[in-house]
Amino acid sequence: MTTQQLVAEIKRKKSFLCIGLDVDVTKIPQHLLAEEDPIFAFNKEIIDATHHLCVAYKPNTAFYEAYGLKGWKALEKTINYINNNHPEIFTIADAKRGDIGNTSTMYAKAFFEDLAFDSVTVAPYMGKDSVEPFLAFENKHTILLALTSNQGAFDFQTQKIDEKEVYKKVLEVSKSWDNASNLMYVVGATKAEYLEEIRTIIPDSFLLVPGVGAQGGNLQDVCKYGMTDTVGLLINSSRGIIYAGNGKDFAEEASKKAFELQKEMEQILNLS
Amino acid sequence: MTTQQLVAEIKRKKSFLCIGLDVDVTKIPQHLLAEEDPIFAFNKEIIDATHHLCVAYKPNTAFYEAYGLKGWKALEKTINYINNNHPEIFTIADAKRGDIGNTSTMYAKAFFEDLAFDSVTVAPYMGKDSVEPFLAFENKHTILLALTSNQGAFDFQTQKIDEKEVYKKVLEVSKSWDNASNLMYVVGATKAEYLEEIRTIIPDSFLLVPGVGAQGGNLQDVCKYGMTDTVGLLINSSRGIIYAGNGKDFAEEASKKAFELQKEMEQILNLS
Repeated sequence: MTTQQLVAEIKRKKSFLCIGLDVDVTKIPQHLLAEEDPIFAFNKEIIDATHHLCVAYKPNTAFYEAYGLKGWKALEKTINYINNNHPEIFTIADAKRGDIGNTSTMYAKAFFEDLAFDSVTVAPYMGKDSVEPFLAFENKHTILLALTSNQGAFDFQTQKIDEKEVYKKVLEVSKSWDNASNLMYVVGATKAEYLEEIRTIIPDSFLLVPGVGAQGGNLQDVCKYGMTDTVGLLINSSRGIIYAGNGKDFAEEASKKAFELQKEMEQILNLS
Repeated sequence: MTTQQLVAEIKRKKSFLCIGLDVDVTKIPQHLLAEEDPIFAFNKEIIDATHHLCVAYKPNTAFYEAYGLKGWKALEKTINYINNNHPEIFTIADAKRGDIGNTSTMYAKAFFEDLAFDSVTVAPYMGKDSVEPFLAFENKHTILLALTSNQGAFDFQTQKIDEKEVYKKVLEVSKSWDNASNLMYVVGATKAEYLEEIRTIIPDSFLLVPGVGAQGGNLQDVCKYGMTDTVGLLINSSRGIIYAGNGKDFAEEASKKAFELQKEMEQILNLS
């Protein structure tokens, strides 16, 4: 998917909501456990109930790998279900991968070709030659970790190299990499005020913003400091939506929560 | 496996060799492609031919994920084969994972419980709360990326925070984390002279050292600067061993290369 297609979909749906499919089988409604594949059954109902309200889905691979082969199969079925039924939706493999050159190419193949995701999250620690293999794939997007929404972000990301925070160095340096136009960035919403400075470094790039809601970030603030002419934001919510209910009507409850966020986004888009 | 058990095995085998099982189906001998599971067939022969010469095996997960479900199945069969036949061998899932708290716990379960690896490689970018969930597992080891052996290491890892390189900050800061005794570190061999300073920060920790051979590192230098009283080193070789031959005798050729390295290690251990 091209960035232009993503922007068009945001405008059509009046939504820049990304729903995180982080499915923990200990947290899903009891009645689904009788299904042959409870994780996929859960995802399918969530997708059926929310696809008109969001522009992206983001399964976090950890939640699938933890269940071994069965989990990987559920991930495969989930991405195929989205691609077959809602090809207009942007898909993100939240995998936070990153390795040396040819190994990163293998990861890129895993997510861009074998599983046919539109994008994958990647860690920057190993530098240019660990990220460029992902960037080489046309119409695929590499979402680089810059400033994450957890407490540990203050251990290294906000420390200063030459009077500039590590995450700002990551933003700056990555701009010079081959096919940098395929880059997007993870920037946590718990530090919305940082977005103003971040936009001076990467004025146009799309940002994937976790941490609105559950982790304390505020949607209005994120949009105030982070929104661009072409929106430039994907706001992720995982637990707040997918675990909104815990009964047979869990998908309906999820849909209500997604609708609330979509309405808030529509209002912001109408004002901007 | 405890660190003591690993050290005992190193002394018994007079080897601190780790063999990287980075299996690319385009590089394995043609005749294996007729097998039902060529990747596992390749690994099985390599393991049968080398298990007496090495103390660790390290599959890089990228090479398995790239083949989707079939690849994940091959990884599962490989780790089960090692654990069932050679439980004394230390196993490393080279996965370079790292995510927010509860998500890191899911990754830890994937590798420590579902696949029963002894250790996993983890990226430090997201800080303390992304790594401690791995450290919480008893007798399991978390191998933190410190200084990698690729060119991209100079992009961020060797940049200075408060006059101290990022990778040294990672070493220092990580020492204070809960269950830090379960930490090991990745330190690339291409910078052997850096090991002297690294040992002033982490005098006893085990180091996983890639980049000897193919990437230009020198075994003698690595041992000179990095070895401890209890050895403290696992030297990894992947392509140099597993692709030593490309015919029906590929495993024998791999064994010869592993034997050369083991002999060199025996000599170093006898002198130390």
